[in-house]
Amino acid sequence: MERDPATLFKTIKTLLEQKRYTTLRDILNTMNPVDIAAVFEDLQSEKTALLFRLLPKETAAETFVEMDEETQEILIHGFSDSELKELIDEMYVDDAVDLIEEMPANVVKRILRQADPETRKEINEILKYPEDSAGSIMTTECVILRPKMTAEEAIKRIRRTGIDKETIYTCYVSDSSSTLIGIVTIKTLLLCEDDEVIENIMETHVISVNTLDDQEVVAQMFNKYNFLALPVVDGENRLVGIVTVDDAIDVMEEEATEDIQKMAAITPTTDKPYDRIGVFETFLARIPWLLILMISATFTGMIITGYEDALTNSSAVYLTAFIPMLMDTGGNSGSQSSVTIIRALSLGEIEFKDIFKVIFKECRVALLCGVALAAVNFAKLTLFDGIILHNTDVTPWVALVVCLTMVVTIFIAKLVGCTLPMIAKKIGFDPAVMASPFITTIVDAISLFVYFQFATYMLNVHV
Amino acid sequence: MERDPATLFKTIKTLLEQKRYTTLRDILNTMNPVDIAAVFEDLQSEKTALLFRLLPKETAAETFVEMDEETQEILIHGFSDSELKELIDEMYVDDAVDLIEEMPANVVKRILRQADPETRKEINEILKYPEDSAGSIMTTECVILRPKMTAEEAIKRIRRTGIDKETIYTCYVSDSSSTLIGIVTIKTLLLCEDDEVIENIMETHVISVNTLDDQEVVAQMFNKYNFLALPVVDGENRLVGIVTVDDAIDVMEEEATEDIQKMAAITPTTDKPYDRIGVFETFLARIPWLLILMISATFTGMIITGYEDALTNSSAVYLTAFIPMLMDTGGNSGSQSSVTIIRALSLGEIEFKDIFKVIFKECRVALLCGVALAAVNFAKLTLFDGIILHNTDVTPWVALVVCLTMVVTIFIAKLVGCTLPMIAKKIGFDPAVMASPFITTIVDAISLFVYFQFATYMLNVHV
Repeated sequence: MERDPATLFKTIKTLLEQKRYTTLRDILNTMNPVDIAAVFEDLQSEKTALLFRLLPKETAAETFVEMDEETQEILIHGFSDSELKELIDEMYVDDAVDLIEEMPANVVKRILRQADPETRKEINEILKYPEDSAGSIMTTECVILRPKMTAEEAIKRIRRTGIDKETIYTCYVSDSSSTLIGIVTIKTLLLCEDDEVIENIMETHVISVNTLDDQEVVAQMFNKYNFLALPVVDGENRLVGIVTVDDAIDVMEEEATEDIQKMAAITPTTDKPYDRIGVFETFLARIPWLLILMISATFTGMIITGYEDALTNSSAVYLTAFIPMLMDTGGNSGSQSSVTIIRALSLGEIEFKDIFKVIFKECRVALLCGVALAAVNFAKLTLFDGIILHNTDVTPWVALVVCLTMVVTIFIAKLVGCTLPMIAKKIGFDPAVMASPFITTIVDAISLFVYFQFATYMLNVHV
Repeated sequence: MERDPATLFKTIKTLLEQKRYTTLRDILNTMNPVDIAAVFEDLQSEKTALLFRLLPKETAAETFVEMDEETQEILIHGFSDSELKELIDEMYVDDAVDLIEEMPANVVKRILRQADPETRKEINEILKYPEDSAGSIMTTECVILRPKMTAEEAIKRIRRTGIDKETIYTCYVSDSSSTLIGIVTIKTLLLCEDDEVIENIMETHVISVNTLDDQEVVAQMFNKYNFLALPVVDGENRLVGIVTVDDAIDVMEEEATEDIQKMAAITPTTDKPYDRIGVFETFLARIPWLLILMISATFTGMIITGYEDALTNSSAVYLTAFIPMLMDTGGNSGSQSSVTIIRALSLGEIEFKDIFKVIFKECRVALLCGVALAAVNFAKLTLFDGIILHNTDVTPWVALVVCLTMVVTIFIAKLVGCTLPMIAKKIGFDPAVMASPFITTIVDAISLFVYFQFATYMLNVHV
């Protein structure tokens, strides 16, 4: 059922120019709101309002939600007050909140003025939760049942009120004080007898999150428990909303992208896709870490400067040729550990209390890796460089210095690589920032220092 | 509702030793199958079978599915044939397939012998699809409706057959030749009039995937369209199964982890969590790339060796002190680009056809980054090193050589960083392998070459 988006876009543009609105409407009716939104984003601004009015009310709201904020803002500016009101009424509350969070202040005012009082209250309720908390991504619209209802009454209630709810597949049972006492899925309701009482068929051991829990925790729960929706409760276990799986998926992708960006020394500033971020914005996201890491790398250079005279006077400048290999291997070893640990922390596989287990494991892996690489390297240096290439600089002693440095470097790299992210998490920093580039810089300096120390003691290099 | 897992585990172990099975059953009944599975994984083997028999049939199957393969295998060995049969009957077909894929051959034979003929046929059907294809992760159990049914008849059918289906929330409408002609959600069915005919209320523009599509494509569709389930069709558009959102989430997390591992030069070999992978397995996943990268880094060293005499003879050994900074900055710039592009490719945000747009953008970002870093560096070198530290080696000409090298290095790093992953994807390789460590090695060599070239032409360094 997939069509080439480029061809489709051209067809729609042509039809719009020819003002063939009936055909246009027929085509739009066959499309998923996500794909319609993509068409809007690519269209010229003056045509969007026209095209938007061709969409049926419900599709219009679903499409609007999927658009990027620029297109949304253009459309809102073109709306009459009553058109805006209709749109807000049709949207789910969590989507309305997302919209408000992205719009400039004057547009926000206009949106809130058009929302009916009930919706406005719900929007303001959600807006007060901190960014990236469970409360900020939840919706307040869910089906609430009472414990004494029968299955038949429950289904009647769902049929009456379900149209406005984001999901009807999981229903929440609360008592008179709004305390969440159980959940029941519509599957259970449909598959049981009509006269079963809710409190007898509901699941009473409900897993929920608190409004202030981090959205990453919410995503982890969905990943772990395969939920379609997760109830959000306040400090007194009162049901205040639900998070649905589609929003949890967005959080998962967002968090994974953020982790990946931080691991690559990019400041995550936006959740826009690559092709929608400008050159300058990209520059701003990348330059801070490049600057910090450039400046810290000069310290590594200072270590070389410190041994410069010794290297020259002892005719040991050839030792500098091994620096890239030692630095790169240290950096790679460190980033293997740090990235593995950061990902495991993100997925909730390990916690700070596991730190000694983790260190013990990484140390053993480091020794295995270090010895294996050093052995290969020693063989390469003595056989290939020494015997075949007749490189007289590379004596077995030089090879030994390089290989010993390698073992120590890998050991330190993996140790630093696994501990820093865990400590960062513990003291409330983002572990992902402690990733490869940062650790590379530390490991570089340490490995050079170790290298020159070994050289000083084991070779004729005199400081 | 969360309890400390360690305390809970201790309680369960004590109760098991005291043989207090009724209390144990009551506690297990309050727990989510995912959490019960975790208890089983931590228990000693001889107790697991005993504890497993305390679980109600349905919970038992759900719990079993969540366990790691070692625990599953131990349990199966302890099962009688009839217990095994009961378990297989209770499991969803896709879960049974997952189990079979992980068990050794003799266990697989036993499982297939116990499955009823219908289930065995369905299992074999799914098993024939290639690994990581849509077919391999789908389930064949879904609610299928006919176009002429009324909503009331449809709901009756769901109530009759729904118990065995993995989801009843999206129902699939097919004609007599099994061709998928529409979908209808249970929300629509419940909210419409009883006598509405399915073909009038079903959504006919169905988005589906082919059995052979990659699972990553499936995950992207869920991410893009917010589905709860996605139909899988064969070449003739016949419905053969569905993928549910929980399986799509697993794929998303798996793919993100794999990408992250590859970016950090780790061979992804397993989807087990960090704390379940042994030291030697971890070593094996990390050593191949460390070896390859170590050997390729020796080429970078060779470039230094090539200029060694020139540096010594011209008393320009001080130039080596800038090598770490240039190499690190190049590596970081390159990995920023490559990682960004790899993630965008994974999420389907860009494709190969966008390569020139991407290159153009990355080049502009590279120039901005290069000029900014070079400017800071020039100021630092002339003011701090030159004037304040009175380092006579660092003349403005030396600073210029370092800064020019930096601009060129960053430019090349970003160019290589964005093109290699896209080309890799185009020719069928995994773009994630073209990530930071690989690109760092290439960029190291180029930047050193450029550095020494500039030094030769602009300073008194004679080769």
